[in-house]
Amino acid sequence: MKALVKERPEPGFALRDVPIPTIGPTEVLIKVEKAGVCGTDAHIYGWDAWAQARIQPPCVIGHEFMGRVAAVGSAVRAVGVGDRVSAEGHIADLTCVLCRTGEAHICERVEIIGVDRDGAFAEYIAMPEYNVWPLDPAIPDEFAAIFDPLGNAVHTVMAAGVSIRSVAITGVGSIGLMAIPVARAAGASSVFAIDVNPAKLELAAKLGADRTFNATQPDLVAAVKALTNGDGVDVLLEMSGSGGAIDAGLQMVRNGGTAALLGIPSERVNLNLAEQIIFKGLKVLGINGRRMFETWYQTQALVKSGRVDLRPIISHVLPYERFDDAFDLMKRGEAAKIVLDFSEQRNA
Amino acid sequence: MKALVKERPEPGFALRDVPIPTIGPTEVLIKVEKAGVCGTDAHIYGWDAWAQARIQPPCVIGHEFMGRVAAVGSAVRAVGVGDRVSAEGHIADLTCVLCRTGEAHICERVEIIGVDRDGAFAEYIAMPEYNVWPLDPAIPDEFAAIFDPLGNAVHTVMAAGVSIRSVAITGVGSIGLMAIPVARAAGASSVFAIDVNPAKLELAAKLGADRTFNATQPDLVAAVKALTNGDGVDVLLEMSGSGGAIDAGLQMVRNGGTAALLGIPSERVNLNLAEQIIFKGLKVLGINGRRMFETWYQTQALVKSGRVDLRPIISHVLPYERFDDAFDLMKRGEAAKIVLDFSEQRNA
Amino acid sequence: MKALVKERPEPGFALRDVPIPTIGPTEVLIKVEKAGVCGTDAHIYGWDAWAQARIQPPCVIGHEFMGRVAAVGSAVRAVGVGDRVSAEGHIADLTCVLCRTGEAHICERVEIIGVDRDGAFAEYIAMPEYNVWPLDPAIPDEFAAIFDPLGNAVHTVMAAGVSIRSVAITGVGSIGLMAIPVARAAGASSVFAIDVNPAKLELAAKLGADRTFNATQPDLVAAVKALTNGDGVDVLLEMSGSGGAIDAGLQMVRNGGTAALLGIPSERVNLNLAEQIIFKGLKVLGINGRRMFETWYQTQALVKSGRVDLRPIISHVLPYERFDDAFDLMKRGEAAKIVLDFSEQRNA
Amino acid sequence: MKALVKERPEPGFALRDVPIPTIGPTEVLIKVEKAGVCGTDAHIYGWDAWAQARIQPPCVIGHEFMGRVAAVGSAVRAVGVGDRVSAEGHIADLTCVLCRTGEAHICERVEIIGVDRDGAFAEYIAMPEYNVWPLDPAIPDEFAAIFDPLGNAVHTVMAAGVSIRSVAITGVGSIGLMAIPVARAAGASSVFAIDVNPAKLELAAKLGADRTFNATQPDLVAAVKALTNGDGVDVLLEMSGSGGAIDAGLQMVRNGGTAALLGIPSERVNLNLAEQIIFKGLKVLGINGRRMFETWYQTQALVKSGRVDLRPIISHVLPYERFDDAFDLMKRGEAAKIVLDFSEQRNA
Repeated sequence: MKALVKERPEPGFALRDVPIPTIGPTEVLIKVEKAGVCGTDAHIYGWDAWAQARIQPPCVIGHEFMGRVAAVGSAVRAVGVGDRVSAEGHIADLTCVLCRTGEAHICERVEIIGVDRDGAFAEYIAMPEYNVWPLDPAIPDEFAAIFDPLGNAVHTVMAAGVSIRSVAITGVGSIGLMAIPVARAAGASSVFAIDVNPAKLELAAKLGADRTFNATQPDLVAAVKALTNGDGVDVLLEMSGSGGAIDAGLQMVRNGGTAALLGIPSERVNLNLAEQIIFKGLKVLGINGRRMFETWYQTQALVKSGRVDLRPIISHVLPYERFDDAFDLMKRGEAAKIVLDFSEQRNA
Repeated sequence: MKALVKERPEPGFALRDVPIPTIGPTEVLIKVEKAGVCGTDAHIYGWDAWAQARIQPPCVIGHEFMGRVAAVGSAVRAVGVGDRVSAEGHIADLTCVLCRTGEAHICERVEIIGVDRDGAFAEYIAMPEYNVWPLDPAIPDEFAAIFDPLGNAVHTVMAAGVSIRSVAITGVGSIGLMAIPVARAAGASSVFAIDVNPAKLELAAKLGADRTFNATQPDLVAAVKALTNGDGVDVLLEMSGSGGAIDAGLQMVRNGGTAALLGIPSERVNLNLAEQIIFKGLKVLGINGRRMFETWYQTQALVKSGRVDLRPIISHVLPYERFDDAFDLMKRGEAAKIVLDFSEQRNA
Repeated sequence: MKALVKERPEPGFALRDVPIPTIGPTEVLIKVEKAGVCGTDAHIYGWDAWAQARIQPPCVIGHEFMGRVAAVGSAVRAVGVGDRVSAEGHIADLTCVLCRTGEAHICERVEIIGVDRDGAFAEYIAMPEYNVWPLDPAIPDEFAAIFDPLGNAVHTVMAAGVSIRSVAITGVGSIGLMAIPVARAAGASSVFAIDVNPAKLELAAKLGADRTFNATQPDLVAAVKALTNGDGVDVLLEMSGSGGAIDAGLQMVRNGGTAALLGIPSERVNLNLAEQIIFKGLKVLGINGRRMFETWYQTQALVKSGRVDLRPIISHVLPYERFDDAFDLMKRGEAAKIVLDFSEQRNA
Repeated sequence: MKALVKERPEPGFALRDVPIPTIGPTEVLIKVEKAGVCGTDAHIYGWDAWAQARIQPPCVIGHEFMGRVAAVGSAVRAVGVGDRVSAEGHIADLTCVLCRTGEAHICERVEIIGVDRDGAFAEYIAMPEYNVWPLDPAIPDEFAAIFDPLGNAVHTVMAAGVSIRSVAITGVGSIGLMAIPVARAAGASSVFAIDVNPAKLELAAKLGADRTFNATQPDLVAAVKALTNGDGVDVLLEMSGSGGAIDAGLQMVRNGGTAALLGIPSERVNLNLAEQIIFKGLKVLGINGRRMFETWYQTQALVKSGRVDLRPIISHVLPYERFDDAFDLMKRGEAAKIVLDFSEQRNA
């Protein structure tokens, strides 16, 4: 089968013929149809420091996808051949205390497809039955292909709790953008978006942000607080991973508020714990992946209800052969979310 | 009346005659009988950088106390002259959104007695009726005098939630020490105490810590994790304010665990947010003061039930005239908790 | 001043001249401008069994209102003369354990204005400062006058938790109707309304119910479950007080779901506890009044954001002199919500 | 193999030779060593109305047990032959929304061993790998054999939340008795036990109940409330299933308190919803089974810590051949908890 492979410890991917994966008794073989391109994939493509430390070539890349079941192992009961599915890309060990208590998303021995083992930028992928998510017919293919990052947004929003609360989002890359309609649909009373990129802020407004702020404006914290009677927002959704944004974001939160951190800083962060967390009585939540499978049900409900429309975010759908174009578009900041098409019907 | 006054911007306190405070219609005048000496008082006595920035002399010091009601304002209903009382030392404005939604302990306009206004190291103190806590007859005077720091311990333990969970406490000064029997009584399945001071660790063991660790031992994190099947503790109670202890403490917590931060770092802290909070899915709680008055009811229940015995922690009860001795004992590390006696019956 | 008085133990109210209330140091005198008419008022007007057992004539009736501060007691700090205000009608004792731990709405010694003491159908009313709610200028008078029942709806919705959850409402009288836009704004993924009154169901659909059901249809439970994949709804908001509705409502809730009960049954209710609550692992919440003042802030946020529009619910605004017409309209089922106008500008 | 079989729709069990169960790829064959006898087994033995409606003979009975792994299916990873194990007896479908969101204990398609399919009163039992619980070496066999009912107690206590709260337990059969040391270890500040059986109340006191009450005493509710300053207990753990006890129990709970219902009423229950649940703002929780596997970890932690000692509750350990004696002892009220011994070493 065709697959996008990180072949050697250097920038770029290779389009290669590799064997179709074999499956065990509790696994499912999926014919990939559409796959989302994530910032993580761009890190691996570009071969930055993080990628060099984490990825062991050769490895098929990609972790956001949907497709159809092509074969099932002998013990598989929940899905059958032909079923239209997506899948949770974090493969947990299912035997540790975290997995056995509903916390598989933070399993210490998790393996991520397309990072720690072969991924979804291929014609076929093998997944444990546990990870497979049968798709509701009402979910369009393109949306289903990006349930993984949409799930990150939903997980963050729901962990923080936004019902009748004011929300600031620092960093509106594709997940931050998704978090805007998610937060509104989940009951946020107001949503403020903050980023350094004016084009992203424009998209944020289109997606329902009540107000947008350029992160570089000097009075940022005061400007946000002014919209909440001077108190600060109830909830911060940190989706940039930038130390400066985290610092400013924490200042924006009211005493007793909640900060949910999803963005991943590339290095240690210097925080004023006393003033920004302890005295304020803040609740700070680290967010990783998606709850299995509470987040998936919530994501499905949001998309089915029509309250979360991802079309403004999906900027490109490209045949997978054009993967180099995809990473080029991302690098130039010209893409919001790119979906690669692996289906037979793709227009190559 | 007699009072211990921070008279000038320099080390030390002065024993002075000052006017008995007057009270308004919703205030209560209390004849102080016993008062606890806190690390904060030592900072003010020693006139360190924090004290210089915060305290505006002249000011009566002291915020932990008990006594008897000497007079009540015309609108006071909840207590009467002669009642034995303690009081919450954080005077909240009671009109802001936080105060009006059960979060008075993090009111933005809080004033702390003995810090922002005249305090309890005096023969009399005026308190708002709202802050006064009528004492159950079963609570001994010495314990009642230190309900404030005991309440800090209770607030931290209850905010974290310790019922059938493993707990590590970093920093066993007087509040950390109190947190040991509090955590056990609140249902912790195991309590580990960590400090640099061997004498405090010995006291920690006496107070019920299952295991104690010197913070300087090189394999500290691994040693604690080894006691929890390698997973890490469910709960960290951070009571040192030390950047190193916070860093080590966060490493000790299992994925999905909770860290409650009460200790106040004197400067910014450098954290590995990605590895220690975000990927682990941690919940980090800033803790300030005591919940009004949920914490006070819990504190009372613990002391009344006999499950929390503070006697091993109260190392000295001294007549207030010996305040210089008290601060000297603290400076030399020879005191756990000192109570000053302002009663007529004191043995001066 | 003029007031609507329950003068004698018999049906009807009398319009009488009574003394303007005097106020103590912590009380506020309010010039009433608009007041909502509640089903409770109709019970008192009609003098049914409940009213005969609870009301002790003579008593001024009415508990939902807004107006302007006419005078303040000497110790009042939060409001001043001329301020536009509404007020929480449950007067809690503020000294019991419930009041001291953020649960004043279920104080055992609560007194309700217009029920246990003189109420708001009058030109003036005296209220404790604690109960007064300063109004945001963006809130229209008519909406402000019915913050009390709207607050019941908000309290029920927020206690249950509806963010990305399916919701069934049994009983769409005026509070049930209000709960529809409230639940949608608070993040409900779908809202189903159930009642015996077709006109109310029509109004429910207009207010945003996704589907409406006549409570008398024979397959009601199955029909609701069919909309939730056969599982049942996540949340029941019971607002009818009917034993039959409670029974059917509990059957509609999925295993592990939540039922919030606000409607007050007039007699004991026979429940299949084993099948409908215990085996299903249900969470059943009794709801009373409004949280002081968390619910009020949430109510304000909803109305200010424009997400909750009460205009379709307010069917009549009448000068208070026409109170007999108001109760007649209610009796004939021709009113949703009636507001009485006590302002100088009323069109009498 | 030998097994205790409900052979025909009539009272009694038969000791029969039946085939050893076969196992699929994800199943585990367990050689039973010890098994607890439950009230449910007595219902089936006695063939009462419930049993007649639920049980379809022939069926091997028994659902509480421990033993050793005798064989594993090809896809089993978590346990190996020879491992000492217990198992969760509720076999959930693992594919429904409840199972996929951490609520397998209330799966709508659950099958219970010894009730809906062959059970544990046999030399061997086949269990899904998912249900198998590897035993810590520190857990004695007899305790491990009754982790199922102990888990019911732990689940009820932890769902209610007892940390620094007062607790009343209505009904101290074997699970109610277990709930006493569990509640104390989990942090209850006081535990009151209520039953009609004086012998059980004596055992309750021995197990740590602060006070015991005969349910027939006329002033029961007032007597319990008197111990909590007249307010009522924070938490009710209802473990009797008696309508009268539920009614009295709800009256004992303070406004805003929590009632967790585990006992299963045999018929509908008549409740004063308005006075006992709605006005009081109660939280009522239906409890079923044990959380998979949070409850199991908590149960293990409690037993390992030595804080929960079941020895006073296990009144008899009998060779399984004496099963008729066991049910006779239970019928005569002479047993607290009976364990049947299926091991080779049993003293038959």
